[in-house]
Amino acid sequence: MKEPYSFTFYTASWYRRSPYWQRTVEAGCTSWDLYNHMLIPTLYDDDEREYWHLVEHVGLWDVAVERQVEIIGPDAARFTQLLTCRDLSRCDVLQCKYAPIIAPDGGIVNDPILLRLSENHFWLSLADSDAMLYALGVQAFAGMDVTIREPDVSPLQVQGPKSRDVIRALFGDEVADLRYYRSWEGDLGSIPVVVSRTGWTGEVGYEIYLRDGSRGTELWDRVMEAGARSRIRAIAPSDQRRLEAGIFNYGNDMTVRDTPFHVTGMERLVEFAADFVGKEALRRVAAEGVDRKLVGVRLGGEPLRMWLEDFWVVRKDGRDVGRLVSASHSFRLKENIGYAWVPIELVEPGNELEVLSPDGPVPAVTASLPFLDPNKDIPKG
Amino acid sequence: MKEPYSFTFYTASWYRRSPYWQRTVEAGCTSWDLYNHMLIPTLYDDDEREYWHLVEHVGLWDVAVERQVEIIGPDAARFTQLLTCRDLSRCDVLQCKYAPIIAPDGGIVNDPILLRLSENHFWLSLADSDAMLYALGVQAFAGMDVTIREPDVSPLQVQGPKSRDVIRALFGDEVADLRYYRSWEGDLGSIPVVVSRTGWTGEVGYEIYLRDGSRGTELWDRVMEAGARSRIRAIAPSDQRRLEAGIFNYGNDMTVRDTPFHVTGMERLVEFAADFVGKEALRRVAAEGVDRKLVGVRLGGEPLRMWLEDFWVVRKDGRDVGRLVSASHSFRLKENIGYAWVPIELVEPGNELEVLSPDGPVPAVTASLPFLDPNKDIPKG
Repeated sequence: MKEPYSFTFYTASWYRRSPYWQRTVEAGCTSWDLYNHMLIPTLYDDDEREYWHLVEHVGLWDVAVERQVEIIGPDAARFTQLLTCRDLSRCDVLQCKYAPIIAPDGGIVNDPILLRLSENHFWLSLADSDAMLYALGVQAFAGMDVTIREPDVSPLQVQGPKSRDVIRALFGDEVADLRYYRSWEGDLGSIPVVVSRTGWTGEVGYEIYLRDGSRGTELWDRVMEAGARSRIRAIAPSDQRRLEAGIFNYGNDMTVRDTPFHVTGMERLVEFAADFVGKEALRRVAAEGVDRKLVGVRLGGEPLRMWLEDFWVVRKDGRDVGRLVSASHSFRLKENIGYAWVPIELVEPGNELEVLSPDGPVPAVTASLPFLDPNKDIPKG
Repeated sequence: MKEPYSFTFYTASWYRRSPYWQRTVEAGCTSWDLYNHMLIPTLYDDDEREYWHLVEHVGLWDVAVERQVEIIGPDAARFTQLLTCRDLSRCDVLQCKYAPIIAPDGGIVNDPILLRLSENHFWLSLADSDAMLYALGVQAFAGMDVTIREPDVSPLQVQGPKSRDVIRALFGDEVADLRYYRSWEGDLGSIPVVVSRTGWTGEVGYEIYLRDGSRGTELWDRVMEAGARSRIRAIAPSDQRRLEAGIFNYGNDMTVRDTPFHVTGMERLVEFAADFVGKEALRRVAAEGVDRKLVGVRLGGEPLRMWLEDFWVVRKDGRDVGRLVSASHSFRLKENIGYAWVPIELVEPGNELEVLSPDGPVPAVTASLPFLDPNKDIPKG
């Protein structure tokens, strides 16, 4: 299989750079994507080498593109609850939630990680859509006393089996031993940060939310220094690793035209005990059922290079029935894996399909998620 | 001056391609930007050659990235009025308006061209932000009966002094003779389109809104055929030409943190006779005044290449006072022009500044907009 189509890209003042930009250039980053109107590293030297470094050691990602929406004020808890189908009455201070944001018709506006910094202080750590604009729209007639803004916050992800050692060296045991989806607020020397036990990999991992963009280089250097013994290196977010883990990418996998009931694994995130915008619409979808769904697929053919360059048509018995929206090669499973939209009658694992790649038809079969559970699927040494 | 920093960019399934994608590749497009999560051509062969073709002949731009928000239903007129500070009681059917979308705090959410297709049917032809999400948010508690969605619409711009001949050859006199900011709805053969007398150049120009994405190649070919005698060619949107005309680019020139009263020339677009979200906030801003403003600047130094690669610091008497957010070289004015944010005491034309380019300090002076009025500033042959 060929690499995705490539061309020369010129930076411009309409793309914001991260506070880590200079360090990512110096670390050898060779290609960036655009995400929330900002540049995000997508390739340093080689996606397979970066993958193995992530799953065997520890990687440092510049994910300042995860722009934050801050919601603060006397009604912040009630207001934030309006935005998401997760039940925030069950979200402690310093707890995180994977919190789909829901439109009035039930569509997914974004799928951020929500951080509750205090009773009435929240951050939404965004995927790639301007969901702050949605929050501002809801505010217009909600009649609640909140301030909605983008704070000066720039996350880094420290991911991989050795990430705990790096975080321990930087912050000590309390932070290294955080439970999954819990966070900590404090300082690294005098650099203000929040650290959460979250990430986009399925590996052990953390995010460090820098709260002062002028100190990006300093934070980057501190992390690199603390990780030297663990062989930390700068890598790009891994499409292969997130696919193995059954993690979705907003914008191609699902959009505002899809509800959580359309996405395998997201159904359980709709908590009807909560009061949120779009609740009645989602009740109807839940009652009536959906006619199509996003599912996992295993694909034949040559190993895929990097990631999918465009959607591919999915066929069944010679008819176009859907589209492949993500795919890459799992270097550990030694096969191509991805996600496809298929009609409801084909969502069960084991359905045979055909996918039209630019190089010709490729066999595919629907599969359950996640593709890989490190505790189960990887033979121990 | 150097070109902006460049690197290899790989396409991905998370960037939508335009229905004209294949034709832009075949026409020799060599570089694209990202805009509303889609790829937009930014360079074919040479930005100066493309500029001269635009101002002397006619250019065809793929601007499918101008994604539409459709607002339709019994309350569509009242609802759309909520979103913008323009007075829509003065907007006829088939009229267009440059219609800033306003947040509850008065910030600019987007600055689309609004098209009124019928009494209760509107399109917002977006600049680069997910303003549909804002409209969906406002809908949550507005209590109005409207449907908000993205229709299957993909605009092309036909711009330049010969554009009228091309439109006449395609659609006849009625459409070619449209008044500025008026539109027409119909078919080209059997291809459904809307045509408006609008554009991003300050030249005579039109936009053709294709209403069936499956027919992009067909429409492109029809336009190219009709324009052959006028020497039409595919070009990229021209940063130089829009700067000459005093046109703004949402995202770098202004953002949701700025109100129309912060942007020179946008003040007059706030029509308090209308009822819209953010009206009270804008009344306060109007009464209290602003402490900074976006203004035109003329810059010394070597001719700039292409466009600004990142913001540059603006100084006055040795102090950092603002930032340059756009700049390019006007090939007709033979000087560098751009926009900068400056403190309110420096907004009048003629204030001398210093701008810190990557190659060193450059003198600058504030200037009135537009930089160039073709009827006044260009000597006749």
